[in-house]
Amino acid sequence: MLRHCFRMENVNVTTQFELRRDLHELIDAALRRSVDFDAGCPERLRHAIEYSLLGPGKRLRPQLVLMACEACGAEANIAMPAAVAVEMVHAYSLVHDDLPAMDDDDLRRGRPTCHKQFDEATAILVGDALLARAFEVLASEIRPAAVAARCCAELAQAAGATALVGGQADDLDAQFSENRSGNGSVDRLESIHRRKTGALFRVALRLGGILAQATTQQLESLDRYGQHLGLAFQVGDDLLDVSGSEGEVGKRLGKDRGRGKSTYPEVVGVADSRDRVEMLVDAACRSLERFGEAAAALREIAQFIGRRNY
Amino acid sequence: MLRHCFRMENVNVTTQFELRRDLHELIDAALRRSVDFDAGCPERLRHAIEYSLLGPGKRLRPQLVLMACEACGAEANIAMPAAVAVEMVHAYSLVHDDLPAMDDDDLRRGRPTCHKQFDEATAILVGDALLARAFEVLASEIRPAAVAARCCAELAQAAGATALVGGQADDLDAQFSENRSGNGSVDRLESIHRRKTGALFRVALRLGGILAQATTQQLESLDRYGQHLGLAFQVGDDLLDVSGSEGEVGKRLGKDRGRGKSTYPEVVGVADSRDRVEMLVDAACRSLERFGEAAAALREIAQFIGRRNY
Repeated sequence: MLRHCFRMENVNVTTQFELRRDLHELIDAALRRSVDFDAGCPERLRHAIEYSLLGPGKRLRPQLVLMACEACGAEANIAMPAAVAVEMVHAYSLVHDDLPAMDDDDLRRGRPTCHKQFDEATAILVGDALLARAFEVLASEIRPAAVAARCCAELAQAAGATALVGGQADDLDAQFSENRSGNGSVDRLESIHRRKTGALFRVALRLGGILAQATTQQLESLDRYGQHLGLAFQVGDDLLDVSGSEGEVGKRLGKDRGRGKSTYPEVVGVADSRDRVEMLVDAACRSLERFGEAAAALREIAQFIGRRNY
Repeated sequence: MLRHCFRMENVNVTTQFELRRDLHELIDAALRRSVDFDAGCPERLRHAIEYSLLGPGKRLRPQLVLMACEACGAEANIAMPAAVAVEMVHAYSLVHDDLPAMDDDDLRRGRPTCHKQFDEATAILVGDALLARAFEVLASEIRPAAVAARCCAELAQAAGATALVGGQADDLDAQFSENRSGNGSVDRLESIHRRKTGALFRVALRLGGILAQATTQQLESLDRYGQHLGLAFQVGDDLLDVSGSEGEVGKRLGKDRGRGKSTYPEVVGVADSRDRVEMLVDAACRSLERFGEAAAALREIAQFIGRRNY
């Protein structure tokens, strides 16, 4: 297991991903510029958008965009509009998922969730504004326009009813459904997580590749890496919900079980879940073979996910 | 007043806009095709999306897209992806605006609102899915891709924090703010409605023009028409809230006043509001002069809005 990822074994990983501080800072600067709205944006809404987009966070998905671009031999910076757009979609999905009518969470990244800090209406509007802005950034900042349109189509699909939104709908249904028979299967869990978490990981990798003019084979490899990594990340999140500390994770733990949500440790046990993370991380690293050293950063990310405090 | 719109005076207009039944049916067929999701979309979400997008409605904004395209000398049908996308953004905004945390409405187009018919979480997700799908339709169905990207950028801007979402945020703020001084001014009302209603009218016209390869002057004329028409429509809605019947309008009336929301009749009186509608409709029609007979359908729409049962 993990045989493709050994080279970074001695790196000091923490739950706050810091391996590429340089990219993190570039991303934060770009995110800040991207929400510099004119006077048409009300002040309270502006503050709530900044609170939700610019707060603490690993910036994992935008880093994946930039690293995928680098892996294909291009400058990371040319993929920044896609990195910004992907992080906006991620931030929007967190704000909406945390709402009282959805997962009803009051803590996120160690701070009050958006609807707790502001109010519920503002949180709904923040999500809506971030989702729209993601497409505005892609469509207006990427050149040539044909690439911009392709990026819009791919991100919209990943954010839509058959992917991110559909996964969240099935996840809620699994919690509230009176007839929970069948909800606890690994297949059902993976089907939810492929859409709810995996789709955005995949599209992050794909957009980075597309902006680097990746070949079809390169894109397929990045896509496979994204699939494995997204699932590894989610199984890891389920494990942290069981065994992590709230201080480390930055959100309420144990809630998934409390609300009857199926998790990997519940369905297959903690030990098998840990094995599953390792296996997925290994598969993710294997997907990168064609890139050689150019994909070192992506391997580090996989290793980071394989080594959180489970 | 209304001197540019006399020709359609004898048309039998009703509050259910039916002048172009042919376009309405084409639009409905296209909307239905556009939400034919694969198995990744959960059944309940699919039903709720169909309920919210395909239910009764005037299809006013998509008709504006197609008519703008015709006014510039192209086949209406080439603008159908934009018509679908604009109606999706409109439908999403209604579903979210009706939520308990926002306007808290239980009746829309004569039926229970989405969160009443389904549930609140589903309504939030329906809006999110429709917004994402709007951009997927634009980006994947419009050719050449440069035009698709331009349409995405314009629609995203109109749907975003400085336009539709910003207008709704200020509208809510005007209702809930304890310090309502200044909220009742015509300038403030118009600033909200320009963003909350007007921006989507404008972009509907602009997208139709863009797809017809309109000249800059044609686009400016369509844009002006959209500005005037959107405001006329909103002042008219305020008047219907005072004087219409719920059967005709299909939503709860008198609520705007009940919740302390400023309306045109409240700020300038009913008679002056009626004059304002006439003046705006007249200005809208004047904006169309360069198109001659090709803009007959757009003039009819303006006249319809000028003659609802105020």
